[in-house]
Amino acid sequence: MPRVVVDVMLKPEILDPQGQAVANALPRLGVSDVASVRIGRRIEIEFTGEPDLDRAREIADKLLANPVIEDFTVRLAEADETADARS
Amino acid sequence: MPRVVVDVMLKPEILDPQGQAVANALPRLGVSDVASVRIGRRIEIEFTGEPDLDRAREIADKLLANPVIEDFTVRLAEADETADARS
Repeated sequence: MPRVVVDVMLKPEILDPQGQAVANALPRLGVSDVASVRIGRRIEIEFTGEPDLDRAREIADKLLANPVIEDFTVRLAEADETADARS
Repeated sequence: MPRVVVDVMLKPEILDPQGQAVANALPRLGVSDVASVRIGRRIEIEFTGEPDLDRAREIADKLLANPVIEDFTVRLAEADETADARS
């Protein structure tokens, strides 16, 4: 059954200290060509029937994202990108 | 400049209490057709030059994911899915 993927990221103008911490750690790993790192959330929603993008958008808006500081996108997962496909 | 997206999700056999909490809250929103919710991380890496998938894979393995309990995938972001495009 296809899943719906909700990607939640901080808005570009909001500071991301978690991502900055990762970016600052990279030189110690010998990585010097990274300009920035932003960390957000990825949520996979599995429906009992047909995947419902509008319903997923409603869930994201009410429960998964804080619209004041975060943007989200909702889309169908491609066949090769769900957790089951990876395992 | 295109970004590299790293998606980190708990392995399917690992319990996801955060996702379960969201799934359990859905009936109170009037949503009853969701079978499961899994919550992971989405990391956007911006390189100073050409995006380097192998380098990103190395960063994910060493810094972003815990390979014991998490799977990750690394890919180039499509033009319409980065934070800048959403804003």
